Amino acid sequence: MLVDGTHYRTVWTEPDRPEVVRIIDQTLLPHEFEIMELRTVEEVARAIKEMHVRGAGLIGATAAYGMQLAALRARSLSQAAAQESMQEAAELLIATRPTAKNLEWAVQRQLEATEQVAGGEERVEAAITTAAEIADEDAEQCRRIGEHALPLIEGIARAKGGDPVNILTHCNAGWLAFVDYGSATAPIYLAHDEGVELHVWVDETRPRGQGASLTAWELGKHGVPHHLVADNTGGHLMQHGLVDLVIVGSDRTTSTGDVANKIGTYLKAVAAKENDVPFYVALPSSTFDWEIEDGLEEIPIEERDPDEQRYVWGLGPSGRTRVLTCPEETPARNFGFDVTPARYVTRLITERGVCEANSESIKRLFPEHYG
Amino acid sequence: MLVDGTHYRTVWTEPDRPEVVRIIDQTLLPHEFEIMELRTVEEVARAIKEMHVRGAGLIGATAAYGMQLAALRARSLSQAAAQESMQEAAELLIATRPTAKNLEWAVQRQLEATEQVAGGEERVEAAITTAAEIADEDAEQCRRIGEHALPLIEGIARAKGGDPVNILTHCNAGWLAFVDYGSATAPIYLAHDEGVELHVWVDETRPRGQGASLTAWELGKHGVPHHLVADNTGGHLMQHGLVDLVIVGSDRTTSTGDVANKIGTYLKAVAAKENDVPFYVALPSSTFDWEIEDGLEEIPIEERDPDEQRYVWGLGPSGRTRVLTCPEETPARNFGFDVTPARYVTRLITERGVCEANSESIKRLFPEHYG
Repeated sequence: MLVDGTHYRTVWTEPDRPEVVRIIDQTLLPHEFEIMELRTVEEVARAIKEMHVRGAGLIGATAAYGMQLAALRARSLSQAAAQESMQEAAELLIATRPTAKNLEWAVQRQLEATEQVAGGEERVEAAITTAAEIADEDAEQCRRIGEHALPLIEGIARAKGGDPVNILTHCNAGWLAFVDYGSATAPIYLAHDEGVELHVWVDETRPRGQGASLTAWELGKHGVPHHLVADNTGGHLMQHGLVDLVIVGSDRTTSTGDVANKIGTYLKAVAAKENDVPFYVALPSSTFDWEIEDGLEEIPIEERDPDEQRYVWGLGPSGRTRVLTCPEETPARNFGFDVTPARYVTRLITERGVCEANSESIKRLFPEHYG
Repeated sequence: MLVDGTHYRTVWTEPDRPEVVRIIDQTLLPHEFEIMELRTVEEVARAIKEMHVRGAGLIGATAAYGMQLAALRARSLSQAAAQESMQEAAELLIATRPTAKNLEWAVQRQLEATEQVAGGEERVEAAITTAAEIADEDAEQCRRIGEHALPLIEGIARAKGGDPVNILTHCNAGWLAFVDYGSATAPIYLAHDEGVELHVWVDETRPRGQGASLTAWELGKHGVPHHLVADNTGGHLMQHGLVDLVIVGSDRTTSTGDVANKIGTYLKAVAAKENDVPFYVALPSSTFDWEIEDGLEEIPIEERDPDEQRYVWGLGPSGRTRVLTCPEETPARNFGFDVTPARYVTRLITERGVCEANSESIKRLFPEHYG
């Protein structure tokens, strides 16, 4: 999407320099816009782990580019040694974020693409092609998600007769979380560009504040009307008719429609159901974990550094800094995600279309994944 | 309660210096512990408005001491001029926080106590007596709330057979929100002091972070085991059986049991109901608004400065400072409270006992307020 008039993706390599992976350093947003260069698998793993890139689609695509770097490094090794090296790179990348399904998927696809090759050059070529495919597909899938969801927003807009459609979103499932467009934001950008009057409530999304720092930044750059609110606010807004629909992304979705997403998503889903507000989850199908059926039991929830909760990063009087919000000795817990059971989800919006959050309906869109 | 071994209340005057109201400056907690001196009604109003004192009970008691200062100032005025001056002070104080019911109640009680007097000295004496009564009653009511709630916690403790009782609380309805003990925290302090094993999940409570800065500080000073969590976390904890009960305070409660409390309370209440977790509201009866029956329709919700949402205060590398968490141009909305309808409230805990959140049950405890 556009940043100050220039089109960017969130991760890319220049055609003539496959050995340098470039990302927008999202830890510096929204106060600084900087491109970060990654030259080794270890640097890519660190960038994922320390959330210089984050978000379901982007983690997967970045890991795919990480495997491209691994193939370049393994270029002159014997077939067996190269395989081993690629496998080590894969394990390193997958270990960075245990909840993210796309990460494992993308790395696995690179392993498969690069294991049947005759030699180092072919391996590199296969890895470059596959990384580009994964990135392009991610962008295209998001665009299609937007197209499929557009009628839902247009329908509400017609019913409201010109009053803005109020959309609540949590965390950042925007273009910064993918390669381009975003999942939850694709419908918003498409509707806005088509002239639909809309307004977005942006959940701050503590502890890391991706709503405040990323979603608000994205929407502002694109000119979409919005207000930042505390994560505590959504229920009050719904009670007073100030939310027409909720759209969030997903980090992992079961074959039965349970949705793991940023911590706090479940609270909004429960409130939406109580207040008859439609609750949509937008996701590229790579987010599905076809193997599992019970999200609460089977999806591992990452627990992160308590200091992410105890401190808040932001722009202080002398630059970017963090402030301690509690007593020095206060202990904290920091759960990264929660699971919203399928019964709270009005519809899933995928690149193949809109479906209900249950096996039968998902199966109609993705029959190849059901035995 | 104790601070470094010394017993403090949150607001007081020394017996020989009724012209100086002393408060713990809560805007500096948890990083600095400072006593602030207030010498005029205007200073008291500013301290309330800018939240140097906050919390249902404390706002009321502080306003009562503010009226004591007003009586001192009106000492030498004629009866008519003094009445007018007291009335002006009352209006100034009441206007500071539109949602807080205790504030109006305490000021009104001071007006009534001081209007039937023969002269300035008697007015001062009546105001001093009434301010002290309001403060003492507040502390005593909180202590009784603790006693009435104690069996609820002890029952869960017995059922868990020694495993700690996990209690979730939102915002600060601790002793810092009252004159002493607190409402939601009184049962916690009493149970802890009696040797019941317990652990408290402390909601951060954005945007102002009273959980992180005040509740965590209180519990730490008293030695109660606790962890700070993001406001987004409660639902996840409840889904996984990690919350045995929720206790929150109330800023205003209808005669039918609807509860206005810090923004985000409603989201926790809805999740508690979904997960069969008991949701208790602890409140001194001065918090009841006997005149109204529909909390959602009739309780005005204060909207506060958007910069409270955009910035976060904390301890930075060079002292207390605030950091901007979103782009400079991002607009925000900042709703201070929400309303939890009575159907989500398991029980109300008052100084007279425990009741259900409905008119019949409340009426049995407080018959004098029902026609």
